[in-house]
Amino acid sequence: MMSDISMAYNTYGTLNEDKSNAILLCHALTGDQYAASRQPITGKDGWWSFMIGPGKILDTDRYFIVCSNILGGCMGTTGPLDIDPDTGKPYGLNLPMITIGDMVRAQALLQDYLEIPDWFAVMGGSMGGMQVLQWASAYPERCFSAVPIATAAKHSAQNIAFHEVGRQAVMADPDWQGGNYYESGRKPRAGLSVARMAAHVTYLSESALHRKFGRNLQDREDLTYGFDADFQVESYLRYQGINFVDRFDANSYLYITRAMDYFDLASDHGGSLAKAFAGTNTRFCVVSFSSDWLFPTSESKDVVRALNAAAANVSFVEIETDKGHDAFLLETPEMLTTIGGFLESTAKSRGIA
Amino acid sequence: MMSDISMAYNTYGTLNEDKSNAILLCHALTGDQYAASRQPITGKDGWWSFMIGPGKILDTDRYFIVCSNILGGCMGTTGPLDIDPDTGKPYGLNLPMITIGDMVRAQALLQDYLEIPDWFAVMGGSMGGMQVLQWASAYPERCFSAVPIATAAKHSAQNIAFHEVGRQAVMADPDWQGGNYYESGRKPRAGLSVARMAAHVTYLSESALHRKFGRNLQDREDLTYGFDADFQVESYLRYQGINFVDRFDANSYLYITRAMDYFDLASDHGGSLAKAFAGTNTRFCVVSFSSDWLFPTSESKDVVRALNAAAANVSFVEIETDKGHDAFLLETPEMLTTIGGFLESTAKSRGIA
Repeated sequence: MMSDISMAYNTYGTLNEDKSNAILLCHALTGDQYAASRQPITGKDGWWSFMIGPGKILDTDRYFIVCSNILGGCMGTTGPLDIDPDTGKPYGLNLPMITIGDMVRAQALLQDYLEIPDWFAVMGGSMGGMQVLQWASAYPERCFSAVPIATAAKHSAQNIAFHEVGRQAVMADPDWQGGNYYESGRKPRAGLSVARMAAHVTYLSESALHRKFGRNLQDREDLTYGFDADFQVESYLRYQGINFVDRFDANSYLYITRAMDYFDLASDHGGSLAKAFAGTNTRFCVVSFSSDWLFPTSESKDVVRALNAAAANVSFVEIETDKGHDAFLLETPEMLTTIGGFLESTAKSRGIA
Repeated sequence: MMSDISMAYNTYGTLNEDKSNAILLCHALTGDQYAASRQPITGKDGWWSFMIGPGKILDTDRYFIVCSNILGGCMGTTGPLDIDPDTGKPYGLNLPMITIGDMVRAQALLQDYLEIPDWFAVMGGSMGGMQVLQWASAYPERCFSAVPIATAAKHSAQNIAFHEVGRQAVMADPDWQGGNYYESGRKPRAGLSVARMAAHVTYLSESALHRKFGRNLQDREDLTYGFDADFQVESYLRYQGINFVDRFDANSYLYITRAMDYFDLASDHGGSLAKAFAGTNTRFCVVSFSSDWLFPTSESKDVVRALNAAAANVSFVEIETDKGHDAFLLETPEMLTTIGGFLESTAKSRGIA
């Protein structure tokens, strides 16, 4: 059992007097609270910097934006790398299993702490979108609106399968040491890197990979006929894998992928997704991407159907793009206009200037 | 350099007097020469047992069927686990890189050895199909007909990406030891198992995984909220991975995946796939599967277009199935009728009773 948790979060903009302009951003599997700030380890811009700022879609002159590291994460919120007060050692695998519901409960505690009665909007992509759906189901009165992007109400068999490959890659690394690697001076770099590589392939569409790399060679004119990275797509993946391990904790990766696998909102409501949203007054904007094969449009449509059955106020847009699942992290013009338009009209209903 | 190679092969049926009834079967990445025999390590039936035998599609009362282990393999044909006569030790990574062209040249040497002037048909799925295309391009006069199934004339960026994940998983395993593991008593079981798991997900369609497993639990009524295989799809994948390492050599896996990545038939002909088949008299039957996302129908159509441009005799069938790439290894009824019908009419042209 965990007696106490820490939450790490960033805010952008200012909370207005009647506390009606707060937006909660829920980050994805490997995201963090640095949504629009320089990430301290990579030194790169935040994952939604193009969305957040003065005059941007998430206008910091109008909205107060909160983004917290998820429970189980590795950027300040309690996770497996933190010290278990009962033992004085890092939790490792002694941390209780964490669900999307737990992540959202922790965010609700943060909301109470910030004295925000309800969110103007709860928003996020991929696993962030799972949290959005969980928020709208568990705390409908705290969500004036909800924007789940590139997500699903449950993890599919194929998605569980890819996650299991990643977890096995981590656990196969002898440096993982059953999860007790923190004090050893070694960590499962190779295993986590392979896990990241496998996952990264699923974030891109086949056509995006083809357009971006095709069979182009890496800094050479001819094939070397060896096991070096001859093809650009190989060196790109290796780069993705190697850089990831510097900023992410392997045990966090295990816990968070597991939380996604366990997510099945309907099963918590007798198998009916519509019941998960019964009586809701939240306004929904559901967004999917045509080339996303990890969270395909059909799964967003399942959510939309359930919301319709619950007589919810819902708009749905499938955005045409060949960029795959990763499109929600890219400055995809139609995503900006869709979310911008939704926030604009929702702000009017809410009476936000 | 390799001075000498061994070829391991099986035959089924009897070569007729005018040597006109020989069929060459080309196996896939993890296949072997035990196409219709009990696999000696697993004890299981051969990978095309349902196709081969008296009265079956590949009727052993009519045809003489040859299936050899590919060059670079690990079931008797020269590969990385064999002894390098120059050093007296296993080749390991000292084996020269092998291409699909090399595999086919080795099969042509076997053909000469068997004194078969030309094949009635050359046939195979996935990497087997790549060999079929290479055969038809390099030795058109030796191929009366060709049946490439679930394949492509080049490996796509996405396919290279998945292979690279698998290779990195093997190489990340400390027991791989730079490829020199044969005499150590240890081999990269964990890494090869992860590679197999990652590849196996790509062999099935999303809908096949959903139909076969969905979110069903493994021998339990409730989630355990841990890292055991709670979901059936997880234990299925683990089983696939663990069993694979008993029958396959990790270095072979590296060499063979690399051969597939390097395959690009058009690039050997000035970028024109049609030129690869110029002047061919071979009859083609190209088969794809609607739910195969690893070798999608569009890639078979590229082959068909090139064959049409080369004025080849070609029939093409996309088979409707939700079984994904693996469909060519399953008793898919429409595949049986398609190949059966093609062989029947081709046998008539050839004058085989």
